[in-house]
Amino acid sequence: MASSEQFIRSILEKAGIEVGGSRPWDILIHNDAFYGRVISQGTLGFGEAYMQGWWDCPNVDQLIFRLLQVDVLELMPKARDIALWVSLARAFLFNRQRSRAFEVGEKHYDIGNDLYSRMLDKRLIYSCGYWKDAETLDQAQEAKLDLICRKIGLEQGMRVLDIGSGWGGFLKFAAERYGIEGVGITVSREQRQYAEDSTQGLKLDFRLEDYHDTQGSFDRIVSVGMFEHVGYKNYRGYFEKAAQLLSDRGLSLLHTIGGNESVTHGDPWAEKYIFPNGMLPSMRQIAEGVEHLFVVEDWHNFGADYDKTLMAWHANFEAAWPDISQTYDEVFHRMWRYYLLSFAGVFRARRAQLWQVVLSKDGIPGGYQTIR
Amino acid sequence: MASSEQFIRSILEKAGIEVGGSRPWDILIHNDAFYGRVISQGTLGFGEAYMQGWWDCPNVDQLIFRLLQVDVLELMPKARDIALWVSLARAFLFNRQRSRAFEVGEKHYDIGNDLYSRMLDKRLIYSCGYWKDAETLDQAQEAKLDLICRKIGLEQGMRVLDIGSGWGGFLKFAAERYGIEGVGITVSREQRQYAEDSTQGLKLDFRLEDYHDTQGSFDRIVSVGMFEHVGYKNYRGYFEKAAQLLSDRGLSLLHTIGGNESVTHGDPWAEKYIFPNGMLPSMRQIAEGVEHLFVVEDWHNFGADYDKTLMAWHANFEAAWPDISQTYDEVFHRMWRYYLLSFAGVFRARRAQLWQVVLSKDGIPGGYQTIR
Repeated sequence: MASSEQFIRSILEKAGIEVGGSRPWDILIHNDAFYGRVISQGTLGFGEAYMQGWWDCPNVDQLIFRLLQVDVLELMPKARDIALWVSLARAFLFNRQRSRAFEVGEKHYDIGNDLYSRMLDKRLIYSCGYWKDAETLDQAQEAKLDLICRKIGLEQGMRVLDIGSGWGGFLKFAAERYGIEGVGITVSREQRQYAEDSTQGLKLDFRLEDYHDTQGSFDRIVSVGMFEHVGYKNYRGYFEKAAQLLSDRGLSLLHTIGGNESVTHGDPWAEKYIFPNGMLPSMRQIAEGVEHLFVVEDWHNFGADYDKTLMAWHANFEAAWPDISQTYDEVFHRMWRYYLLSFAGVFRARRAQLWQVVLSKDGIPGGYQTIR
Repeated sequence: MASSEQFIRSILEKAGIEVGGSRPWDILIHNDAFYGRVISQGTLGFGEAYMQGWWDCPNVDQLIFRLLQVDVLELMPKARDIALWVSLARAFLFNRQRSRAFEVGEKHYDIGNDLYSRMLDKRLIYSCGYWKDAETLDQAQEAKLDLICRKIGLEQGMRVLDIGSGWGGFLKFAAERYGIEGVGITVSREQRQYAEDSTQGLKLDFRLEDYHDTQGSFDRIVSVGMFEHVGYKNYRGYFEKAAQLLSDRGLSLLHTIGGNESVTHGDPWAEKYIFPNGMLPSMRQIAEGVEHLFVVEDWHNFGADYDKTLMAWHANFEAAWPDISQTYDEVFHRMWRYYLLSFAGVFRARRAQLWQVVLSKDGIPGGYQTIR
C-alpha cells in the first residue's frame, strides 16, 4: 500500500469512517488515485475528487463532521518519508496550493435566480438563519431579520444602510415592519434589479455600488453575509468607511461567518468554486479592525445555526434538482451538494462561527442591552 | 495667562466645566501650579493634585465624565509653541511619564478588611455587579454570581477552579447554590484565610498560589476581576494555562474590565496608587490570546454597570468614613474617593468596558445558548 493511501486510511480510521462501509458517514472510493490526490492537493483535491465522482458518501456532512474531529498533526508520520511529510504539510497546514488539473471555471457565476429561489426561503435570504425558536427555514430567516432589527433598535423614519443588500430582503422587511427608509448597495446587477422590483412603494433605494463609493450619513448600518468577501487587507478600510457613514449616535451590526483562526486566504476549494476571494475573518482581525473606531457593544455567536440552515438549503436543493437539472450538469450538482454539506459539517464541528457584532461609535450612554 | 493654563481652561470650557462655578461638575482650583502640573504629568498629576487638595469638585465622577467627552487632540494648539505641544503629547497621548514629586508609597497595601467590609456588599465581591434587575449592591452582586453560574452551566459535583478567588465569595455561592466543589487560588494571605474560615463544611480548597503553579483538571474555570493584573506579556501564557487546566468538554468564563484600545501599560495614576502593574486588556489582545486555544462562545459587555457599582461603593465608603478615619489619613480619603469616582466617570463615558467571555475548547456541540 502506498504511504499516501496508508496515511489517508489512518485518518479515516481515526474518524471512525470505513472505506466501503454502509453507515451514513462511510466512504466509497471509486478511484485509487484518490489517496495521492488528497495528499498532494489537500481540501481542494478532496472536493474536486468528489465533484468528479472519485468518491461517494451517503451523508457528506456527517463525513466532514467526523473528519474534523481528527487531529491530523497527531497522525503525521515520523520524518522517515520527508517527501510525503512536506506534501502533507502543504496540503493540510498551509492549504495554499492551487490545482489546474480540473477546471470547472466560472460555472457558479451562471447560477440564476431559479436555483436560489428554489433553495432559499421565500425572502431569498442567503445567510445564516436564527433557529432558536424556529422550526422552518422561513421562520428561521424571519427570526434572523427581526433579531437584527431589534438589536439595532430600529425606529420609524430611521435611515438605514445595508452593505451587501442581496435581493433586498432585509431592507424590505425592515421597511415594512419598522417603517425605516434605506439604501442597499450590491455589486450584482441582477440582485439590484430584483430588489428594486420587489420593493415598489417603499422608501428604499438599491444601488449598484461598491461600499468604498458610498456617501452620506446613516442612523444604522447593517451588513449581512457580505464581510466574508471583503478580504483581510480591507478589513480596516471597511470599518473606517462604516464609521464615516454612521451618525455619531448610530449603531452598526455586522453579521458574518467567522473563522477560529486568523488567515489570509480562504479554503482553496471553496475559494475556487463557491466564493472567489472569500475568506473568513477571525475575532482578532475584527477586533483589530474596529479598534479606535467602534465600541463593541455585543458579540453573539450562533454558528451552530448555520448547520441547520445549510441542511435546509440542501434539502430544498435536492428536492428542486429534477426541475432544474436541465440547466446544470451533474458536476455542478455534486459541486453544489458538496458545498452545502461540507459547510454544514464544518459548522457542526464548530470550526467556523456565525457572529453578529453590534458596534457603536463611542458607547451607548447607559450601556447596551443584549437582545437574543 | 500661561499657555498651560490657557490650554487646560480650553479643555474645561469645551467640557462645560466652569472654574469656580457652583454646579456639581464645576471645579475649584486652589493652587495655580495645577495647570502646569497637569500639562507636564497628565492624568497622574491630575489625580495627585486632587489628593493634595489642589483642586476640588462636588462630584468628581461628573467632572471626569464631562472631560472624557472632549477630543483633546482637536484642541491641541498649533505648532507655535513646540515645547508645550511636546509636553502635552507626552501627557495626554502616551501617558507614560512618572512623577516622583509626591509619593504616597504603598499605602493602599495597608488597606485592611475593615475598609472592604464597609465598602463592598455583604459577600465582599470586589468586581462589577450586574444591575439589570437589581436595585441594591447586594442584589447586583448576587445577580452577577448567579449569572456566572448559569453561563457556565454549573451542576452538582462539578469541579471548579476560581483563579483570583478573593475572599471566596464566588465559590461559596456556587457551592451552596449549585453543589459544586472547587479550588480557589489567590496571592493574598489575608484573603485566603478569610475564604477558608467562611466556607467551613463546603468542599472548597483555598490556596495561596500563583496560577502558573496550579495543577489538575477542572470542569469549569472562572476568573472574576483578576485578569486586569495579568499584564499584556502574560495574556497568552494565562490562556495556555487555562486551556491546560480545563477538561476537554469544559467551559471557562473570564470576567474582566476591558479597554477600548490595546495598551501595554495602565493609567499612570491608577497604576501607582490603586492597581500596581494593572492594565486593561483590549478585545484584540484577548482574541489574540485565545486563538488556537478556545472558541469564544459568548462575549457580553455590561460596562455601564460598573458605573453603578462604583457609585454604590463610593456611597458606602463615605458613609463609613467617620468610623474608619482613625486608620487612614485625609490624603488616603481623597485618593480613594478619586479612585472610585474617576473610575465611575470612565465607565459612564464608556471608555472602559466590563466583559464576560465564555470560552470552550472546541466549541460546544450544537452551539452555546446566550444567557443574560
